[in-house]
Amino acid sequence: MRYELYYWPHIQGRGEFVRLALEEAGADYVDVARLPEHDGGGRQGVQRMLEKAGDGRTPFAPPILKAGKLLICQTANILQYLGPRLGLVPKSEAARLWAHQLQLLVADLLVEAHDTHHPVAKSLYYEEQKSEALRRAENFKTLRLPKFLGYFERVLRENPGGDSCLVGKSLCYVDLSVFQIIAGLDYAFPRTMARMKPAHPKLAALHESVMKRPRIAAYLASSRRLPFNNHGIFRHYPELDDEA
Amino acid sequence: MRYELYYWPHIQGRGEFVRLALEEAGADYVDVARLPEHDGGGRQGVQRMLEKAGDGRTPFAPPILKAGKLLICQTANILQYLGPRLGLVPKSEAARLWAHQLQLLVADLLVEAHDTHHPVAKSLYYEEQKSEALRRAENFKTLRLPKFLGYFERVLRENPGGDSCLVGKSLCYVDLSVFQIIAGLDYAFPRTMARMKPAHPKLAALHESVMKRPRIAAYLASSRRLPFNNHGIFRHYPELDDEA
Repeated sequence: MRYELYYWPHIQGRGEFVRLALEEAGADYVDVARLPEHDGGGRQGVQRMLEKAGDGRTPFAPPILKAGKLLICQTANILQYLGPRLGLVPKSEAARLWAHQLQLLVADLLVEAHDTHHPVAKSLYYEEQKSEALRRAENFKTLRLPKFLGYFERVLRENPGGDSCLVGKSLCYVDLSVFQIIAGLDYAFPRTMARMKPAHPKLAALHESVMKRPRIAAYLASSRRLPFNNHGIFRHYPELDDEA
Repeated sequence: MRYELYYWPHIQGRGEFVRLALEEAGADYVDVARLPEHDGGGRQGVQRMLEKAGDGRTPFAPPILKAGKLLICQTANILQYLGPRLGLVPKSEAARLWAHQLQLLVADLLVEAHDTHHPVAKSLYYEEQKSEALRRAENFKTLRLPKFLGYFERVLRENPGGDSCLVGKSLCYVDLSVFQIIAGLDYAFPRTMARMKPAHPKLAALHESVMKRPRIAAYLASSRRLPFNNHGIFRHYPELDDEA
């Protein structure tokens, strides 16, 4: 099966969580928007898919995974679908529900990380909501981020399968997503994360170990991995980070 | 199977989406926090479950569904689990992925509806973020809400199974959740919704038809249905609604 991923071509965004799973599994996939426009790629390639109507299952927003005749949206839904097919989740129903539950928490954290720089409106520039962003980021750094990171650290510590992964005994798609969360937070809030990492050693170790996996390392070094930038979910505005 | 639902006892909140599915199916369930404290209920009943540690699958937040030995969190995850067991989702994998995808969009909308009154921090009072709330609510009413409602209206219109439900040919758990979204928005933004409903006739009809289903009508008339109030996700602050 050749999967087709439809996601905006200039940011990692939510598409990156899907890319990491496909890359780790060595899956056959096309990142459609990264193709030249004359081959159906670019933003237009995504836009065309979003406007594809009439089959009664029109997407709301990317990422969209095309798997044969299926069109699947919502990052966590896509990963839940791919997990068993890519060997990235244990077999039992209980473990799969647990993995999906953790992935939905990743999604919650992602919204809150985004809203540190856009607390009023996605449709306005950061500069138009900077005073609100300063307040929201302060709350994020002092209350919400410690709560989320503390929770994931605890899940690693308490995992009966061992503290090197979140679910079961070996790598799960959720580990890849949590790697991406840490990478994004390191980009957006380097000083805050430098302060917080010592208290979250297992999360830091998970981030390191995922980064060194051969297929992930090769992916991160390739042009397929877009750099972080200030158009994505994780943005680096020094004034939102801890003071120097 | 007697299900146990753990959710805060004084608000509808996210627990309500689970309650509606259990009620519509006539399922055997206990809303634990509504029991007297001396029977293990109240906020303490929820708190005890949240602090229950050591099995490696500690919950992050309610709602929590206990189904036999399983503890399941995240509203959409719970509904995905219950759907087939309560006969509230079609059988095919494609339809279930689609239903879950729509439920995750309901979850996205819910966060945005909440953040109209709490755009800075859950931990602060509304009055401490009122100026930010006014800006965020304006954006919600003019851009985000039309986008979400327009999308769900379109899904109803294009559903090959008929425009009286969102997925397949008969009632799905997503229909119950969208009913709850409309009910909540009617409470929080009565003037905005009065203005918008004529453009979304199928959504309005879905809301009416769910409300009249015998088990839902009986539930809504019972003391099990908590009233909306200004402690929940949907809150009525007249200054955030359309002007009179």
